[in-house]
This record gives sequence, C-alpha cells and structure tokens, in this order.
Amino acid sequence: MALAFYSETDDPRPWREAIRAALPDLDFRIAPDLGNPSDIDVTLVWKPPRGWHRQFPNLRAILSLGAGVDALLEDTELPEGIPITRMVDAGMGRQMAEYAAYGVMHFHRRMDDYAQAQREGRWTPLEPVAVRDFPVGILGLGVLGAQAAALLVAMGYPVRGWTRSRKSLAGVESFCGMQELDRFLAGTRALVNFLPLTPETRGFIDGALLARLPRGAYLVNLARGGHVVEDDVLSALEDGALAGAMLDVFAKEPLSADHPFWRHPRVVVTPHVAAVTQAEDAAAQVIENLRRLRDGEPLRGVVDRARGY
Amino acid sequence: MALAFYSETDDPRPWREAIRAALPDLDFRIAPDLGNPSDIDVTLVWKPPRGWHRQFPNLRAILSLGAGVDALLEDTELPEGIPITRMVDAGMGRQMAEYAAYGVMHFHRRMDDYAQAQREGRWTPLEPVAVRDFPVGILGLGVLGAQAAALLVAMGYPVRGWTRSRKSLAGVESFCGMQELDRFLAGTRALVNFLPLTPETRGFIDGALLARLPRGAYLVNLARGGHVVEDDVLSALEDGALAGAMLDVFAKEPLSADHPFWRHPRVVVTPHVAAVTQAEDAAAQVIENLRRLRDGEPLRGVVDRARGY
Repeated sequence: MALAFYSETDDPRPWREAIRAALPDLDFRIAPDLGNPSDIDVTLVWKPPRGWHRQFPNLRAILSLGAGVDALLEDTELPEGIPITRMVDAGMGRQMAEYAAYGVMHFHRRMDDYAQAQREGRWTPLEPVAVRDFPVGILGLGVLGAQAAALLVAMGYPVRGWTRSRKSLAGVESFCGMQELDRFLAGTRALVNFLPLTPETRGFIDGALLARLPRGAYLVNLARGGHVVEDDVLSALEDGALAGAMLDVFAKEPLSADHPFWRHPRVVVTPHVAAVTQAEDAAAQVIENLRRLRDGEPLRGVVDRARGY
Repeated sequence: MALAFYSETDDPRPWREAIRAALPDLDFRIAPDLGNPSDIDVTLVWKPPRGWHRQFPNLRAILSLGAGVDALLEDTELPEGIPITRMVDAGMGRQMAEYAAYGVMHFHRRMDDYAQAQREGRWTPLEPVAVRDFPVGILGLGVLGAQAAALLVAMGYPVRGWTRSRKSLAGVESFCGMQELDRFLAGTRALVNFLPLTPETRGFIDGALLARLPRGAYLVNLARGGHVVEDDVLSALEDGALAGAMLDVFAKEPLSADHPFWRHPRVVVTPHVAAVTQAEDAAAQVIENLRRLRDGEPLRGVVDRARGY
C-alpha cells in the first residue's frame, strides 16, 4: 500500500515516523516525489492544488489532515465515489473548547473594556455581570461544538445550541432549524460559531442575523471565515448591535495588513490558531484508517460529500 | 438588636432591604447616622476608619463585607475578644476561579503574544503548547484557591498547590511548607496567588521567589497587592524570568496613573475586579450570622486573628 502526502503547512516527517512505526509495510511518499502515480492507494492531505487528486488512477481513499474539508470539497475535479475522511477530534475539541471559553470569559468579564481602560491608564471597576445573565449561544453542536458546550455548562454559563436537526445535550437548551433561529438568537448574549462551512452556511453570519441578537451582543468565530460577512460585522460594531468580536478565521487568510479588524478596538484577532492539529493525537486516527483500508474495513470519520462535512 | 453599616464602596440599601426582609426586628443603621453607639450589637463593614469600632461599648460581633480582612486587622485599635467574620464565598469563589482560568488560558494560549502581534498588524501563528505542558501552581488552597484548582483540573491543566499545612484535593499535586516550596516553584509554568495576606505572606512574591520559577513563567495575582514586590515583578519581566503577569490587585489602589504596569506590554492590569461581592449571595451569609448572633449560636466564617484569616 502506498500513501501520497501533501501539505504546505504540515511537516511530513512526524507523520512518516508515526505511520512507519505502526505500519512498516506502508510506502510513505511525499509530494512532489511520488514516483509512479498509479502506485498510490491513499492520500493524506491539507489543501492540495485543484485537480491534484486526478493523477492517481488507483486511489481508494483521501484522508484529510484537518477537521474542515470545505477547501477539499471545493475542488470540482475531486474524483467521485472515493471516501474522504476528516479528523474527528485529534485534540482539537479541547483546544477549540478552550478558545471558546476564553472568548466568552473575555467578554463576560469585560476584559475588552479593561484592556481599553489600561491603554488609557484609567482605573475603572465596572459592574460585574453574573454568569447566569450571560447566556452563550453555540451555532452547531457537532463533536467540537458539543465539547465547547460541555465546558461552558461546567463553568456555569447558561448554554443554548442551534442545530439543523434536533440535538439533546445535558444542560444545553436546544433550538433547531430556521423556525427556531429567531428565539435562539434573541436569548444569546455571546454567539459562538461552530458550524461546518457548506454552501448553506456560507455567509450565514450577516447583518440580518446579527441584528436579531440582543443589542450589544458578542461574536466568537473559530469555525471558518466564510461563515461571516466581514463588512456586516464592522457595521454591527459601528452601530452597537455588536459590542465586540473575537475572530480566529477570516474570508482571506492571512488577514491582509490593511484589514480594519487589526486596528479595531473592539475586535480581537488571532491567526487561525483556535485549534492546531497535534500530530501525536491525529496520527492515531490516520493509522487506524490506514489499517482499516488495508484490511478492507469501513473507514472512520467519512465525510458526507452532499452535506459537506 | 441594632447593626451599624459602614462602607465607602458598597451601597447599603440592598443590604438593608435583604436583612429587613429576613429579620424585620433588626435595627439597621448606616454610618454616620448611628444614633446612640451603645445600642449597637454588631457591625457590617468594609474598611472602616482606624479606631471606628471603639465607639461601640456593647459590640458583640464584626461582620466583614469582604473575604479578606487584612485591612480590618491592621486596625490596632480594633476591640479584642469580639468575633470577626468574613465572607466565606458569596459567589466570589466562582468569580475568582473564572479569573484564574482566564489568566492561565491567556498565557497558555499565548493571547498576550497575539495581542502584541495584533497591535503590530502581524499574522504570526505560534507553536501551540499542549495543556499537559502547562502546569499551574496555586499558592494557597483555601475555599477560593481550591475552587480555582478544581476548575483548572476540569480543564485538563496539571495543577499543583502549595499550602502551609498539607491539603489533599482531587487531581492536585500537594506541596507543603517552606521545605517543598522550591520543588513546587520549579515545576510551575503559571503561578496563581490565592494566599491570605498576613504578616508572613506580605512581600512573599519577590525577586528571589520569581527566580525559582522556570524561566519565562507567568504570574496571576488576584489575592492582594501586598503579596507582591512590584519592583521585583518589573525586574523579572525585564530579565525574562517572567514572561507575563496578570494583576488585579496592587500595593496602592487605585494604581497611580504613572505606574509602569499600565503601559507594560507584558502586564495585564484589571482594577480589583477578580471577585466582587454579590449582595444577593452574600446577604444569605450575613443574615445567617445575624440570626445566629440573635439566637446565641456560634457564628460562621469566624476569623482567626492570630493567623490573620
């Protein structure tokens, strides 16, 4: 069995090492040194160029190095009928839950206001907000969103979740479908986005949606930049609909040096670091799927191409 | 029974209302309108002037509006032999645990570096630090410190606690006394201070102590400014012993406008807001003690004057 590795941001060496240790017979090849493309059974990839997968006539599976496969699925030349798997957790759930909790606390504990006061050298204690008066609304309760919800529940926040199909999680008030979106938004003080990026959710967080939050709400986006209409976020901050935003992902990354988010006093920018795939945890998932592929068993974490995740 | 209320920062009205509802016979008096001082059985106070308590010949108890009674005990004219109670939790445990968790995540997730990068408009993803590689050391595991430890344990941080006498808490590595302080500090990446302020702990966090942390450690202080030698913190930041500090309390509050902490790029300043006594939660404790005083039962949360907390 031969594997082709492609990523411009991930170091192939720890992957090769971990996979060789577990599956010594596997032939690990790193792009562009792939030898005869018809040898390749499986790819392990992050954002390969469009059409890259067409060169492998005997491909049996595509393993994504990340949890989000939106970039991969945008490749209209991706071979049909071949299973694509994504990272289901790989330590990313914990990291994203931490980031979400940090973002919620940042605004709940008014750290944005205190940072502003510090810049101005002002000692200004503000009225505290009880945790029970700071309901958090999570868009999307997949593996990652659910883990963030659990942490926020454990921290005492009232947590509500909005999903496409009904999800029941301990301590989380459930809202489902477009017909319950208004009620979900109206009771949300901090909106945390965990949606997958699909044609339906692209541009979902726009001015109309933000206007349905209570005035002075907060936005934490750690899913994908494509979910958010960035100009609408700026307008909402301008007119007070939003009081602050913490953003890890952007329509265009890296965020261009002249983007107004950088210097906006009510925006926290982080450079797509809410969750970084940790090779050690992720390797176990990849190895398990390679073993299953070798033994003819069904793969884990297979993407539904129609849904997009 | 008559009560004398004194605070320059707490509104007496919600206190009067809550206490009247529970104990309608209690005579609630607000300084300076105290009538005949010999009527007063009990005081409810925050930072009364030195010697203020000497005017009450029939005083039976002093109830502090805060958890820290160091300012009260510094009054050398405080009447002897009268029980002093302090707030034991009153929602403060949760607030302080949140603040501690926020401070730890702020440094663990390198939000200080990202804030700096944002000021400079730089998109610079940094190497993530696994949660297991970010041990948190808590100085003091009283009611408040223990609650913070529990939250940090739940979040997956390796947590170690240093106490005067041996404390055993689930998931917390215990260190005790001066003989174990070195080992405690050597394995601590973020030091979180929850000590009570006593003559022994005043100035405890000085240059010598900070130098025993691993190089590039972090400090979160939400106990008292008097624990910290502020010039030593500045020197430790200068020479790299400390990589950052989040400080809620200071030797002199409000922090003077020209204090170097305000403009230091590696210091987060908040204006003594880690925990704010919430009247609703705190009132229940005060009412319980007033009822006990009326019925001749032992009070709760009585301070050991010799220990200072």
